[in-house]
Amino acid sequence: MIGAPPDGTRLVPPELARARLTALNALAALYDAWGYEPVEVPALERYDPAHPRAEQSFKLSDRDSGVLALRSDFTPSLAQLVRSIHPGVADGEQRALRFRYGGTVWHAIDPELARTREFTQVGVELIGVSNARADAELIHLARESVRAVGLTPRVEIGNPGFVRALFDLAAVPHRVRDALADAIDRKDRSDLRALLAASDIAGPAAQALLEVPGLYGDAAVLDEARQVAPWPETRAEIDRLAGVLGEFEDHSELLLDLGMARRLSYYTGVTFRAYTFDFGQPLLGGGRYDGALLPYAAGFSIGLERLLSALQPGFTKPAVRVMSTDDAAARRLREAGVPVVRASAVDEEAARREARMQGLPYLLHEGRLSEVSLTRARGTSEADKPQATYPGELDAIPKPRASDDTTGSGAAGVTYPGSLDSAEGRALQRALEDGE
Amino acid sequence: MIGAPPDGTRLVPPELARARLTALNALAALYDAWGYEPVEVPALERYDPAHPRAEQSFKLSDRDSGVLALRSDFTPSLAQLVRSIHPGVADGEQRALRFRYGGTVWHAIDPELARTREFTQVGVELIGVSNARADAELIHLARESVRAVGLTPRVEIGNPGFVRALFDLAAVPHRVRDALADAIDRKDRSDLRALLAASDIAGPAAQALLEVPGLYGDAAVLDEARQVAPWPETRAEIDRLAGVLGEFEDHSELLLDLGMARRLSYYTGVTFRAYTFDFGQPLLGGGRYDGALLPYAAGFSIGLERLLSALQPGFTKPAVRVMSTDDAAARRLREAGVPVVRASAVDEEAARREARMQGLPYLLHEGRLSEVSLTRARGTSEADKPQATYPGELDAIPKPRASDDTTGSGAAGVTYPGSLDSAEGRALQRALEDGE
Repeated sequence: MIGAPPDGTRLVPPELARARLTALNALAALYDAWGYEPVEVPALERYDPAHPRAEQSFKLSDRDSGVLALRSDFTPSLAQLVRSIHPGVADGEQRALRFRYGGTVWHAIDPELARTREFTQVGVELIGVSNARADAELIHLARESVRAVGLTPRVEIGNPGFVRALFDLAAVPHRVRDALADAIDRKDRSDLRALLAASDIAGPAAQALLEVPGLYGDAAVLDEARQVAPWPETRAEIDRLAGVLGEFEDHSELLLDLGMARRLSYYTGVTFRAYTFDFGQPLLGGGRYDGALLPYAAGFSIGLERLLSALQPGFTKPAVRVMSTDDAAARRLREAGVPVVRASAVDEEAARREARMQGLPYLLHEGRLSEVSLTRARGTSEADKPQATYPGELDAIPKPRASDDTTGSGAAGVTYPGSLDSAEGRALQRALEDGE
Repeated sequence: MIGAPPDGTRLVPPELARARLTALNALAALYDAWGYEPVEVPALERYDPAHPRAEQSFKLSDRDSGVLALRSDFTPSLAQLVRSIHPGVADGEQRALRFRYGGTVWHAIDPELARTREFTQVGVELIGVSNARADAELIHLARESVRAVGLTPRVEIGNPGFVRALFDLAAVPHRVRDALADAIDRKDRSDLRALLAASDIAGPAAQALLEVPGLYGDAAVLDEARQVAPWPETRAEIDRLAGVLGEFEDHSELLLDLGMARRLSYYTGVTFRAYTFDFGQPLLGGGRYDGALLPYAAGFSIGLERLLSALQPGFTKPAVRVMSTDDAAARRLREAGVPVVRASAVDEEAARREARMQGLPYLLHEGRLSEVSLTRARGTSEADKPQATYPGELDAIPKPRASDDTTGSGAAGVTYPGSLDSAEGRALQRALEDGE
């Protein structure tokens, strides 16, 4: 017997597991449609003290292979995969490779600081090509990733090269760059002002740096930025953003943020984060990191746990609604895409009790579908959960109105979900008859 | 930069990753149709020296949680999940719970002995119920799991209780039981005879033990077993098998093996293994283990790596066949379920070169679909790979016959795959027009 899960890990019960799978499948379908090929990389890696997350990695020792680490990030391994199957691209050949990935990453952070230490990450990489068109494809996919799980996207686009150019123009010492970039990224003007003063950084470029947190909004921000920072070095970085924006017909869900300055030394081109309304944290983040691990590479990754926390509770795939004692009839429903659970009992009344206990509103017995009164079970947690619907033709099942009879008393003419007269009940009957 | 993958792990390139996903999705669809709910358990576990695989687990130390281990088996964690969300069932309540799971397990075996140390396992558990009907459901799902990946199943069913009863009747000392069970399981009669003789085990039950390896075949084996082992203790175990077999209308892919004696002290009821023709190793194994971790539990698990090694090379999901410079037209194809890759170039000839380099036979430019001559690329490894087909209406694409022109030279009237006149080309055209 193993004990409770270690700190920062958890057991995932069916309802949440299904919501997670639904989100994963929606994202996989999107990336597949755009020609992103699945790849897998090991969860066990050789420990490398130079790895950006080395401090946060779970280490383990192996008999022969030395010190190993649990994967804390997909990008380094994906670069290794490219080197192994497309050495030309790893050497600088321009050839577009599109990969998608998904799996667990582990961060050995103090469990008192972080509730989660075992995460699920999904993402895509567009490798071997570096231009505005490629950047725009990734930003589009970032936007559609949010939409794929039923949320309204808002994508913020930035270019850390702009802040980097201003740092160079203002001769900002490297030791204070991270702190300054952080203040700019957080749009904390007072912190920014204090940091500049503390390091005696002044002049026109320093003045411009103070304006950066305000360079946020629609395409008009680009003109504003050109006025705030009129130097050739900064203009080139602004033009880069303009080029990416020019790839889109519809800018309505895109916002520019010239102060986006996270991981300044890693990202070399356009970066972006996707948000949704009423949820403060970014749902995904990514950008271009040419030269860091591969000559040309950009991508983004999504933390599944955070994505799920932004989703509404009703976001689940179909749950089972039918219990059966009739294997042949059950087969017909399954072939029509309807999940059916086999009763443990063959006797009708015992099976009906079992269906009631499991909160299943339909019983299939000797070829006939009947209603299961869930009245007695309504008080239990299982029966109170919102019931999901079936795919396809069964999608249109109306939600019960407050005035509807949802107790399953079977009163004639009432078409509550779970009744044979409801759209769901009629669709089940049809699927049963069609299969005969 | 991280180095080559550690021993026993690997980078999975797109073609193999897609085959793995196809198999996983087929299994998930099967288990969903039968009402098995997805659950997830942590990859990190508290290290327990009493865990059956403790010797083979990768250990790591955590600051506060003590020694951790990487998951080496799903079953203990699943039992923990049941205890946490259905404590009544963990305490003996009879209520059927159906779970499916999938993920990585790690075995810290010597890499010189095992090529793989990071495995993907998929399985189902039927918990809270213990009867022939439940056993039969699992055996049916085991059989259908093999069929779901396109292989012809053969399921061997046994009952370790039969061998255990004979051990008791023959007063076999516990210290030699594992070795004897192993010899019986391997049907190694001479080893079996030697082991019995070495321990001075004789008498009618010992005689019966020598016959066990021959008790293998169709339902008639049960009668044979009743003659070989006519005692009440053994008869009860034979009846148990007969009860499970009685649940099936069609026995054609089922075989009985009274000598199935693997993990004798773990399994308490019927056990089974699924095979396919021309592949010697079992594709999956499972059985009933009431009382071991939970009062009533049975299930099986599939090693994805072994399953994949039994599959034919052609077992892949649709690969991309179309490159596009026209985003609106590409969207129509994607909505019709056809994956489309966006060209890095917008210029037609550059996009055509790009499509050729990537082995994509169709180019979509300014709303028109045209053929891409793949002749020059035929020699490269990418273009030589068998091309997969599309789902749905595109499924019926004929395989090129030896006499077909497959060089893509575009000769009129030749309907090779990749031509606009082929079934694939016509279906693509239709999807494009329908979406307008």
